[in-house]
Amino acid sequence: MICENISFENGLLRFAGRNPLELAAKYGTPLYLYDEDRVRANMRRFRNAVKTHFGEGSEVLYASKAASFKQIYRIAAEEGIWTDVVSSGEIATAQAAGFDLSHSCFHSNNKTPEDISYAMDRGVGYFAVDCPEELYALAAESAARGITQKIILRITPGIDPHTYEAVATGRVDSKFGSAIETGQAENITALALSLGNLKLCGYHCHVGSQLFDSEVQLRTAEIMMNFVADMKDKFGFEAQVLDLGGGFGVRYTEEQPAPDAASVIADVAKLLKSTAAARGVKMPDIFIEPGRAIVADAALMLYTVGSVKRIPGYKQYVSVDGGMTDNPRYALYKSPYTFYDASRPVSEKTERFTVAGRCCESGDLLGENIPLPADICRGDILACCTAGAYQFAMSSGYNRVPRPGLVMLKGGEDYVAVRRQTPEDMAEFDI
Amino acid sequence: MICENISFENGLLRFAGRNPLELAAKYGTPLYLYDEDRVRANMRRFRNAVKTHFGEGSEVLYASKAASFKQIYRIAAEEGIWTDVVSSGEIATAQAAGFDLSHSCFHSNNKTPEDISYAMDRGVGYFAVDCPEELYALAAESAARGITQKIILRITPGIDPHTYEAVATGRVDSKFGSAIETGQAENITALALSLGNLKLCGYHCHVGSQLFDSEVQLRTAEIMMNFVADMKDKFGFEAQVLDLGGGFGVRYTEEQPAPDAASVIADVAKLLKSTAAARGVKMPDIFIEPGRAIVADAALMLYTVGSVKRIPGYKQYVSVDGGMTDNPRYALYKSPYTFYDASRPVSEKTERFTVAGRCCESGDLLGENIPLPADICRGDILACCTAGAYQFAMSSGYNRVPRPGLVMLKGGEDYVAVRRQTPEDMAEFDI
Repeated sequence: MICENISFENGLLRFAGRNPLELAAKYGTPLYLYDEDRVRANMRRFRNAVKTHFGEGSEVLYASKAASFKQIYRIAAEEGIWTDVVSSGEIATAQAAGFDLSHSCFHSNNKTPEDISYAMDRGVGYFAVDCPEELYALAAESAARGITQKIILRITPGIDPHTYEAVATGRVDSKFGSAIETGQAENITALALSLGNLKLCGYHCHVGSQLFDSEVQLRTAEIMMNFVADMKDKFGFEAQVLDLGGGFGVRYTEEQPAPDAASVIADVAKLLKSTAAARGVKMPDIFIEPGRAIVADAALMLYTVGSVKRIPGYKQYVSVDGGMTDNPRYALYKSPYTFYDASRPVSEKTERFTVAGRCCESGDLLGENIPLPADICRGDILACCTAGAYQFAMSSGYNRVPRPGLVMLKGGEDYVAVRRQTPEDMAEFDI
Repeated sequence: MICENISFENGLLRFAGRNPLELAAKYGTPLYLYDEDRVRANMRRFRNAVKTHFGEGSEVLYASKAASFKQIYRIAAEEGIWTDVVSSGEIATAQAAGFDLSHSCFHSNNKTPEDISYAMDRGVGYFAVDCPEELYALAAESAARGITQKIILRITPGIDPHTYEAVATGRVDSKFGSAIETGQAENITALALSLGNLKLCGYHCHVGSQLFDSEVQLRTAEIMMNFVADMKDKFGFEAQVLDLGGGFGVRYTEEQPAPDAASVIADVAKLLKSTAAARGVKMPDIFIEPGRAIVADAALMLYTVGSVKRIPGYKQYVSVDGGMTDNPRYALYKSPYTFYDASRPVSEKTERFTVAGRCCESGDLLGENIPLPADICRGDILACCTAGAYQFAMSSGYNRVPRPGLVMLKGGEDYVAVRRQTPEDMAEFDI
């Protein structure tokens, strides 16, 4: 099966040991279903790998932009992992959940003065600083508060994850961070060291997402450790923290591999340690920031089919009661997914359909050439797998379609973690 | 200038006669600024053209998916135009604004049983029915209520707006409606006429958006009127309503033409009347549904610049405090826009920048190769023109970035129409 928590039992689709049809009937559709046990297992897998290979000071930070809601921060806290936040909204959510924000790092290529103040008010542990403008703004705000803020600097190692041989091109051209190749990473290090009220703790990088090839992560780690050593040689500054970001690949289709993040982490650890030893620098604490790899395979999205349209000589469409408003990833990136008709589990997938959403927009599709049973029809429950990352998180109010609810499954129980919006909620901020 | 309500006076950018810098200071950024006077002028232009060329029973329906918030429905009501709604959320918003929903038509390729019930409860005038499944569901619900619901049928005329010669291809393959070419439009007419509790009033079509070539609209109108005549010949059914949808083009860049919707409407009227006469059918009431053409050029979006990043040998970036969360159109479609640095109106646009948003995502861009002044820097107010359609409407909570406020400008006054979200609002539905 595409995800470990999906199976067929006696001809019925099961997710996290539950029958999706019963959950659809209980909560309505569309519905984000999250398997809490799977979220916890994923968090533990990363935490164990990081603690084993890098030691106690190293941390897993859940990249909460993949799915940010109160309960996920509570679970992260219970599993002993930190979090990566990217906005005042994520900080507010984490705080409301009781998350200790000293265990967080604030990312973003553009933090406003309001963001900086908001985050400092709430004791965010680290700022990942993107650019000189932000360094100055942080130093000024820290000085005004009489505090010393811990920071790490976002560095562009110059790796294009999909053509990683071409180190000199591609990812140097990014809205994020300061490039090593252009000397800007060195310059911002010098600037950070020169400003008061900031404690430079190290560096951050993130080369991309959906990495299936450990070579990219190994090469990135090596470049970053050499940069750490270069900065020690140049400025006598020894990084205490090296944050290697996320990007661990996740399976959306049967054709994609099932990556083993723990073994990538083990290989990265070995290479980092040997590089540090060779360059004569102390091994820093390592932060890694999985988001997708923690939540993607922990969720199943349920829709109800509204119509099946066969256009003789052209394509055929299945329209569902959700779409780009709850998951814009196909509209944005043509992201592939695996679907099951939960109402017809014993029917073979003998035909191919375009799965369309309900928005008044031609581009509102969830997939094309999707294998589904020939007898699919209005009222069937369609399940979209690997639905936990960047779906709820990217949901919009387009067409004023209310956002689906989010239900968690845990050890045979189910509970609402995010309430479904009503039609009236859509006008809540209108005057 | 790109829009009629944008000008430079004494070296200062003006929008709707106001100084955007003062409004940015008063309300903060990002900020959706709508020129109410321009919205009203656009509505009047369409209404006058439709009433002049088609007569009193014909109507303009504002396609509110372009920008749906309470105040826009109040303005539409005051200007004597109807509205096109696409979800229970839009219906709820219109109702909360006091809009008479008998003056509305409910579109969507997939209306759920809950949508149908919600719309009937609120007296929505017309349902534009997409497919047979929906016809049956509507008939059942009408029967249960003992009412007769007015409907029109969505028809696919087989016009690809960008290659309209190839009538037999392209748009026949759509998630929307029933195609004339395949016989499905005729079949659904027969079905609609056979079901009780439904009053078939006519047909709807919509061939696409951003039409600059009146030939597409003329050809569509001719095909639809011939279809009306064919259905009279076949079933003795004479359509009372023909809804030709929207699609009127709007200028986003200086290179695009400034279309004259009134003259297109005049030409369409002439052709429809001659076709009706030639085919011996009564001229139906005509509905048209402009959305973008009513609100797009009525708004200006204001951002604050956070950083300017020059990567030697590569590109240069301007990062702003908004992005794909308030306007995903560049991320989705590479939609072009015209920008001005409102803080440096006298500086020539001598350099080109990628305008990047603040989301933790490489694809979060608002434009590329955008001409801007060389001295642009943190704190500058960047204005994005033609910002009224499908920006506020498509805004998302991605990264839990709070949604900007929406301020209306009217005759020198300004007022909040949609309140800015706070960071805490982002977790409002979380439990």
